[in-house]
Formats: sequence, C-alpha cells, structure tokens
Amino acid sequence: MRALEKFQEAVVQPDSLLCVGLDTDIAKIPRFLLKQKDPILAFNKKIVDATSDLVCAYKLNMAFYESLGIGGLESLKKTINYIPGKVLKILDAKRGDIGNTASKYASAIFDYFKADATTVSPYLGFDSIEPFLNYKDCLSFVLCLTSNKSAQDFQFLKYKGKPLYLEVASKVKSWNKEKNLGLVVGATYPEQLQKIRKVAPELPILIPGVGAQGGDLSKAVKYGAGKKGIAVINSSREIIYASSGKDFAAQARLKATELYQNITSARN
Amino acid sequence: MRALEKFQEAVVQPDSLLCVGLDTDIAKIPRFLLKQKDPILAFNKKIVDATSDLVCAYKLNMAFYESLGIGGLESLKKTINYIPGKVLKILDAKRGDIGNTASKYASAIFDYFKADATTVSPYLGFDSIEPFLNYKDCLSFVLCLTSNKSAQDFQFLKYKGKPLYLEVASKVKSWNKEKNLGLVVGATYPEQLQKIRKVAPELPILIPGVGAQGGDLSKAVKYGAGKKGIAVINSSREIIYASSGKDFAAQARLKATELYQNITSARN
Repeated sequence: MRALEKFQEAVVQPDSLLCVGLDTDIAKIPRFLLKQKDPILAFNKKIVDATSDLVCAYKLNMAFYESLGIGGLESLKKTINYIPGKVLKILDAKRGDIGNTASKYASAIFDYFKADATTVSPYLGFDSIEPFLNYKDCLSFVLCLTSNKSAQDFQFLKYKGKPLYLEVASKVKSWNKEKNLGLVVGATYPEQLQKIRKVAPELPILIPGVGAQGGDLSKAVKYGAGKKGIAVINSSREIIYASSGKDFAAQARLKATELYQNITSARN
Repeated sequence: MRALEKFQEAVVQPDSLLCVGLDTDIAKIPRFLLKQKDPILAFNKKIVDATSDLVCAYKLNMAFYESLGIGGLESLKKTINYIPGKVLKILDAKRGDIGNTASKYASAIFDYFKADATTVSPYLGFDSIEPFLNYKDCLSFVLCLTSNKSAQDFQFLKYKGKPLYLEVASKVKSWNKEKNLGLVVGATYPEQLQKIRKVAPELPILIPGVGAQGGDLSKAVKYGAGKKGIAVINSSREIIYASSGKDFAAQARLKATELYQNITSARN
C-alpha cells in the first residue's frame, strides 16, 4: 500500500489521531519487570496490548534503544514486529546524512527494522532526503519546527522575512512528488503550526510535545489536523509512565483513553 | 584527558591530519572476505593495521553499520575496540534530538560504543547539543556546512546578510565553554571554509569531502587547518576501496600515504 493511503487507513479505522510514544527507558519502567529476560520488550508488549485499539500509530524513538546497545536494538526490532499490522510503526530516528550514506539509514529503518514511517532532519537538504523518498510505501516526516525551547536558535531565523521552519515546509511540499513526505511540528508552537498548515495544507504532520512538554492539545488538533485529520498527536511519557506499579498497563490505557477523548472533542 | 588535549595529541604525535573513514559497505569489500565469520570486522582490522601509523583519527559512519542491523553494530563496537588508543575514534552519527532524548544518543555513542568524538546536527539548537557537552572528555563536531550539493538548500539561506552556516559557526563558538566542540565543514566549499575559520579560529574542524566527493585538498588544509593544525581531513572511499583484490590493505596504505604526503605538502 502506498504511504499516504497507509497513513489514512491507520487514522480512519480506529478513528483516532493518537500516537503513543514507546520511548522506553530502563530506568523508568516498573521495577518488577527487571527480572524478565527482556524487560523493555515485556513493558512494550503490555503497553501495546493495553492501547492498540485506541491509536493510529506507535512512535519508537531510536535513541532510547540505542543507548542500551545491541540488546536494546533487539528489543526495538521485536517490538516493531509485535505491533499489530494496521497500526503505523514510526521509527523516530531524525537521521540526516549525504546521499550515499542516507540510503544506508533508510535501509536500516525500512528494510531492517521494518518501520512504516520515520523522521528525518532537513539540515543537509534534498539529496539527504531523496533516498527516503525512494521508499514509496513508507512515510518520512521531515523536522520542520521541533517542540524544544532551543528550536528558536536556528528554526526561527528569517530569510527574506520568512522563518527557516516555513522555508522547510515549502521545500518539503515541493519535494513531495510521491506523496510520502510529512512534517514534524511541536505542539508547543501552536501559532507557528497554524502558519505551517497554511503553507502545506496536504502534508501529514506528526505533532509531539503535548503532555510532559506542555504543548496545547486543542490547538494542535485544530491547526494541525483540521477537518481532514491528517495529523498524528504523539504522547510518550505521560501515557507509558502513568504508573510505576503492577497496574502500569491499565493506567496507561486510562491515560491514553483520556487523551483519545480529548483529541476527539477537539476535532468536533 | 580533556577533549581538546586528546584531539591535539592525536594530531601531533603522528604529525598527521589524516582521518580515514571506515564507511565499510558489505557490497564493496573484497569478495574473498565474505567467507570470514565477520567480514566487516576483518576488513576494518586489515585497514587499521595498514594505516594506523599514518592517521590521527578513524571516522566510522554509523549508517553503514546500522544498515546491517544488530550484526553490523557488533562489528562497529569491535572495530572501535580494535583501534589503537592514541588514535581518535570518531563515531559519525549526526544525531540531533530534544534534550532528554539527546542524552540517550550521547550515552550510546560515548558510554556504549566508547567513541572519543562524534558529529551532531545543529537544527534543534543548543538544548539538543548540551547533553553531548556534558561529556567533557569527548569532542562533538557540529554540522556547519556539509559537503553535499544540497547543503545549499538551507545552509546558505541568509539571515540579516549572514548565511545559516556562519550563524551555526558563531553559536557553536559561543557554546564551547568546555572546549569540546568542533565543526564539520566540507572540503567541497573552500571559500566558505575560509569564512568559517575566520569566525571560529579556535574550533577543531572535521573536513570531509576530499577524494570521491571532489573537494579541494590544498585549500582544505590551508583554510581549515592553518598553522595551528586544528583540523582533520577525512577520506573514506578513495582509501579503503583502493583495490578490491587480495592487496586491498596494501593499496589502502599506498593511497593513505599519498594523501598524508599531500596534506603535509599543503601544510608547508
């Protein structure tokens, strides 16, 4: 299935824009899981079992798995394999390198780890993103405006009156011949999200930054998703660490349900 | 040893600015190595044995290892462990993520893979680089002006008459309190390298793009290293794939020697 259709189906079928971030940190998961052979995988499976009917996507940030070394990457691969087929698997890697090297990253993400979607950095320009475009069935979300405070260091610099993040949005729109590109825009910058949506009305947007980072959920939905619903709203820590006890999966489901309902209210 | 001293010692002791890029591609190594248990590691060991007295650093681009999955990352870890202690081990990862996630990447690179140095993307600004700064004994080279053609898409955009790459150079200079930051500037943009060196006279510069990418070696040395010699010149494909036969290591040494001599001539 082509990338955009896969995305649309993932969103429509559970009628959900919620993405749960499996940013699983060995120091934060319930202690009793540590006696399992693969505590990270055990945690992820329980979270997936408890939430998969509520979400359109899971986002796995590669840094958390890489920091555990080879064992962590094994847990990552097994988690992706465990997620039900209809749910979009976003491997959040934020890679960016020159062409022949970028093709190796794209292969790692899509061929080896079997993700449906990823995130890429725009700093190196088109030829660093082109190898990702060649995976026509996979979505690549280009970092446009990130959710952190220091996003302002460079992303807000103005070129002929136009901030860099809007220039990125325009360029990504022009590169989207295969309809397999999207943008990453943090919910912590709602006004800017509105501007970006005007520049690129058709691009799927991955919106992190609600929850622990304090982004505005209703504006993220209103400006990012709009009536067409082409956005996914990610929450990680707030959901997966809702409890550190035996009831962690049930509490994660409660939190995910709450967020799902808040998103649904904001859409109507 | 602190980062800058480690860098200086690596450069001074063999009196070399040459960095060999171990961008080892399973499709490009000599066929007879494929019957080895770990062909990538076998190839890297031979290249290291043949060149380690000529270089100040090896640069391992993580993409090539990641694309081979978990086995590739095992080869990467073993290669880093094999490189002699005095030689700088640069893990070229170009990571960039928000603070709490960036700290996981920094830990993967410096704690798990035991690199001495890495590369990071500037797009997310200071708080994405701060966790790397906390590793006071490790150098982080921030992407400033990359060697590829599409670097021009965003890096050349002018903010108040100043291109983005120079703004990055200025900011990195101001963040360098612990003297453990450097810049990445491609040899393919020699005039811009000269401008960057004026903005940041004290920062170590990692210069890729000579060899297969066609960058100007003598200008890279003249503008990048200057009299203080605080630059490393990287060449990957031209050296490691000098021959695809049984003599690949000897041919790599010949090519590395030639480049070492050309760098030395350009310094004088």
